[in-house]
Amino acid sequence: MTEPRDFFDIVRSLRAHRVFSDRPVSDDIIERVLEAATYAPSAENTQPWVFVVVRDPAVRSALGELTTRAWDSGAREYARSRLSPAMFADVDRGATGGVSGAPVLVVVGGDRTHCNDAVLDASIYPAVQNLLLAANALRLGSALTTLPTVLDGALRELVSLPDHVRAVAVVPLGWPARPLGPPRRTPVREKAHRERYGNSW
Amino acid sequence: MTEPRDFFDIVRSLRAHRVFSDRPVSDDIIERVLEAATYAPSAENTQPWVFVVVRDPAVRSALGELTTRAWDSGAREYARSRLSPAMFADVDRGATGGVSGAPVLVVVGGDRTHCNDAVLDASIYPAVQNLLLAANALRLGSALTTLPTVLDGALRELVSLPDHVRAVAVVPLGWPARPLGPPRRTPVREKAHRERYGNSW
Repeated sequence: MTEPRDFFDIVRSLRAHRVFSDRPVSDDIIERVLEAATYAPSAENTQPWVFVVVRDPAVRSALGELTTRAWDSGAREYARSRLSPAMFADVDRGATGGVSGAPVLVVVGGDRTHCNDAVLDASIYPAVQNLLLAANALRLGSALTTLPTVLDGALRELVSLPDHVRAVAVVPLGWPARPLGPPRRTPVREKAHRERYGNSW
Repeated sequence: MTEPRDFFDIVRSLRAHRVFSDRPVSDDIIERVLEAATYAPSAENTQPWVFVVVRDPAVRSALGELTTRAWDSGAREYARSRLSPAMFADVDRGATGGVSGAPVLVVVGGDRTHCNDAVLDASIYPAVQNLLLAANALRLGSALTTLPTVLDGALRELVSLPDHVRAVAVVPLGWPARPLGPPRRTPVREKAHRERYGNSW
């Protein structure tokens, strides 16, 4: 289970997990994953990240209800019109109990007293990506979800976030209920340009 | 130079490089690094990232002037009042020719026709973090800079970004002119909370 893997294998096998087993996740594992997050860059090295680690079933369930509420209030119909049927079914399952079924939910916030609001996203999402990759390195499933942040006030109340901390993501952590295949990606040559936009790589 | 390293070593040794050697960086290396970037998550897997790879010395120099101009128009004085003298000197050197001295500058954009503006940052900065980590895995120096995006119009013009692509970062890539020590980070226990904010990990 824990043989070391090549860095690029870890990067290339990262998928959003939305179904988890009941097997518990130890504090040690969570600490390793959060420590990796703290090694991300941030504007002026201000390190504005805040992590609230939720294990309490009642709070996880309330976070799940919040996510479903955000999903029901427009996001589901928006997604249905844009996603493939298979992906829609997967996201729908995630938003209606799958994600909140993880044994651990990490609410990620950005502290605006540490860091100018204009560069807060640039100083938080790299840490979230480190967190996801570190989880994958340890064979732990995760996902980057922003849906619950739509209902900002209710989310902050559930984990007592003060006004100066902006909620930016909720990341479930748990052992995958089933293995996922490789992710699908558009090749670099369709995303990269040489010297100027439009001058294809 | 290229023995494989442990994932966590790569994560923990990432630093912002602002001085680069003249040694060229091959297209192969750039492609590996950009490919890693494309394996990041994005909202609905929309993959809104755009990479413009700049090698042209005239454009790099113009990007450098732009960065210096943004630095001179307030950012320098703001930073001087907040940073340690050593860090200020390093950032100042970076903003006044260090970063643009890299043999490659990658202008990273987010395509708003692919992805709702509200989740664009969440769908781009994870890719930028993959890019930085992949560079570090290959012993290539890099940095996440957002300063040139302050002068958005001038930046977009230099690399012909269309209106629907938002410029989010400029990442220099080059072989480090000198090794950097380990990054300084606040421990997890000061950043993580149990169940609720304020209930220290």
